Amino acid sequence: MAEPQFLALDAMGGDFGPSVVIPGAALALKKHPGLQFLLYGRQPAIEEQLHAFPELAARSLVHHTDSVIASDAKPSHALRRGKGTSMWGALEAVRDGRAAFAVSAGNTGALMAMSRLVLRTLPGIDRPALAGQWPTIGNPSIVLDVGANIGATARELCTFALMGAAMSHSVFGIDRPTVSLLNVGTEEIKGAEEVKQAHAWLKQLNLPFEYRGYIEGDKIGQGIIDVVVCEGFSGNIALKTAEGTSKQIATYLREAMTSSLVTKIGALLASGGFAILKRRTDPRRFNGGTFLGLNGIAIKSHGGTDAIGFASAIEVGYGMAATGIIEKLTEDLVALQAEIDKVAAAMPPAEQTSDDKAGAGG
Amino acid sequence: MAEPQFLALDAMGGDFGPSVVIPGAALALKKHPGLQFLLYGRQPAIEEQLHAFPELAARSLVHHTDSVIASDAKPSHALRRGKGTSMWGALEAVRDGRAAFAVSAGNTGALMAMSRLVLRTLPGIDRPALAGQWPTIGNPSIVLDVGANIGATARELCTFALMGAAMSHSVFGIDRPTVSLLNVGTEEIKGAEEVKQAHAWLKQLNLPFEYRGYIEGDKIGQGIIDVVVCEGFSGNIALKTAEGTSKQIATYLREAMTSSLVTKIGALLASGGFAILKRRTDPRRFNGGTFLGLNGIAIKSHGGTDAIGFASAIEVGYGMAATGIIEKLTEDLVALQAEIDKVAAAMPPAEQTSDDKAGAGG
Repeated sequence: MAEPQFLALDAMGGDFGPSVVIPGAALALKKHPGLQFLLYGRQPAIEEQLHAFPELAARSLVHHTDSVIASDAKPSHALRRGKGTSMWGALEAVRDGRAAFAVSAGNTGALMAMSRLVLRTLPGIDRPALAGQWPTIGNPSIVLDVGANIGATARELCTFALMGAAMSHSVFGIDRPTVSLLNVGTEEIKGAEEVKQAHAWLKQLNLPFEYRGYIEGDKIGQGIIDVVVCEGFSGNIALKTAEGTSKQIATYLREAMTSSLVTKIGALLASGGFAILKRRTDPRRFNGGTFLGLNGIAIKSHGGTDAIGFASAIEVGYGMAATGIIEKLTEDLVALQAEIDKVAAAMPPAEQTSDDKAGAGG
Repeated sequence: MAEPQFLALDAMGGDFGPSVVIPGAALALKKHPGLQFLLYGRQPAIEEQLHAFPELAARSLVHHTDSVIASDAKPSHALRRGKGTSMWGALEAVRDGRAAFAVSAGNTGALMAMSRLVLRTLPGIDRPALAGQWPTIGNPSIVLDVGANIGATARELCTFALMGAAMSHSVFGIDRPTVSLLNVGTEEIKGAEEVKQAHAWLKQLNLPFEYRGYIEGDKIGQGIIDVVVCEGFSGNIALKTAEGTSKQIATYLREAMTSSLVTKIGALLASGGFAILKRRTDPRRFNGGTFLGLNGIAIKSHGGTDAIGFASAIEVGYGMAATGIIEKLTEDLVALQAEIDKVAAAMPPAEQTSDDKAGAGG
């Protein structure tokens, strides 16, 4: 492992800009004292925050940019007006080899479009996928695509599988990750055509990971699979639904525990347990998604996170850079495409009767 | 409201067959003493259970069937071999007007295929949608399609909206339900083409419900929308992901509360609160989905539920039959199709630039 030295931060991204990015960077520096920071954004706003962190200030270079991508900017607008923004600056630093990775808490669509333009994609990749961390009963899983694109071809789903496995290896140190395709049933007859085609291929391919077949939505959180692969529409809905359900139950729990004096006393006594629960479901620990398929590392932090969450996002980029994920993926993707071509030529497309399309089980 | 009198039950469906269906029917009879039951399945197995419920036995007619649809049968196989099964018998009773509705806990795909064949579909409906109940902080919402089919056209999404609203009215008594389309972002630029087209139409149509635009996965559980509309792949994944997340947090909570002697004592004191939590998240209360778009009422109970859950499913059918939902939908669907034709002729299809397809926000 070659430890990364320089990283680039979009200091203006997210709901709180430098007031979260700078303290987040300071936390990352504590963990990795060798890091050096390229900070992109409005110099006065950044320096105001840096005053409180002299050690970070000593290891930072501020690159002033006048403009910032609005959090509600359309991707097409962000592309036209992107040059000269803090987000663009951070990505350029990665492209030019001045930084090992970039982190931004800015607009997802803009970051996706801009990083594709600035960093370009890896061989055979047209549209990168957004990979997110999914808290589970065991180790966190990687789920992709969680919303970079709508729809994915069978071939794209196979590349997502490969890239997700590489991320699982980089970020969680898993040697031979297990990978499943998200589907509406575990029987082979079910699911969308692209998913079934990808399934048929993955079963045949010689892969640097363990393909385990289909997984349904209720099993993602069980932590039985390291990487869950899906197209971006259903992936985004799955991720957001899990977030929403988690909040919903937290509301139920709060209301239930304050329903009487006795439950309040009980809850007070059990506060150590509630602290454990809170820690296990703390979204800051799982912050940091990334666009896989780019020729460079761009990490997307949640826009509403705090310094602890932002430091988690930096940690994801650190792990990916340290393991040389881009170089490895460049090789592996070429090999995978060749494998798919070989297998696809030898087998007919998956088929089914129209009646068997119906029914999602349960 | 005309109270339904006869209902037909597939006594063999689900993981436990008559040992859940019969006690479930007995619970429903307590609530609605005027009901009469047509029970389809193996006579000895049914009668063995009926002995324990003499009042139910007095109001039941057992129709013996030799065969049963296996819980893992493919829909196409179920169709070929369906005639003479307990599921088929219950559906035929609805078709012939001998029962106001049918309930089965059997194989979803088989029930879908068979009810489409036996009951036929309503005007303009090719593929019915599976509508499920979604527990929320407020009243339960209706979500459809949760897995009857993969994919849906814009026109189908509009009919789902109408049918879901009718169900919300029938089952929860809501006069003018609010309806949203599930999407990956709330900005107008985002989402699949069909979803955007349906959105454009619904905004223009003269509807018997309140169309409220897009909703994201994390908002379904907030109870701010009565009916959430989506195609079956993402809908099934959303529903299962919510179930899985709920179980995952229950596991966390159990582990947290047993982590020390003090938390155990606290949890014991707070047991009244935990009972409230359990009740609010009890899946049996929300059991009972239905295939909307059929010319008759067929309720799908979860295969693994108990008598309380099965009685909930009967209650859904009861509400739908009592409000004459089929007659009302037959009229409303014809009107909706005419409205869509009018609006579609007057407006061009929704468009966007390719860059704006990217990005799911957050």
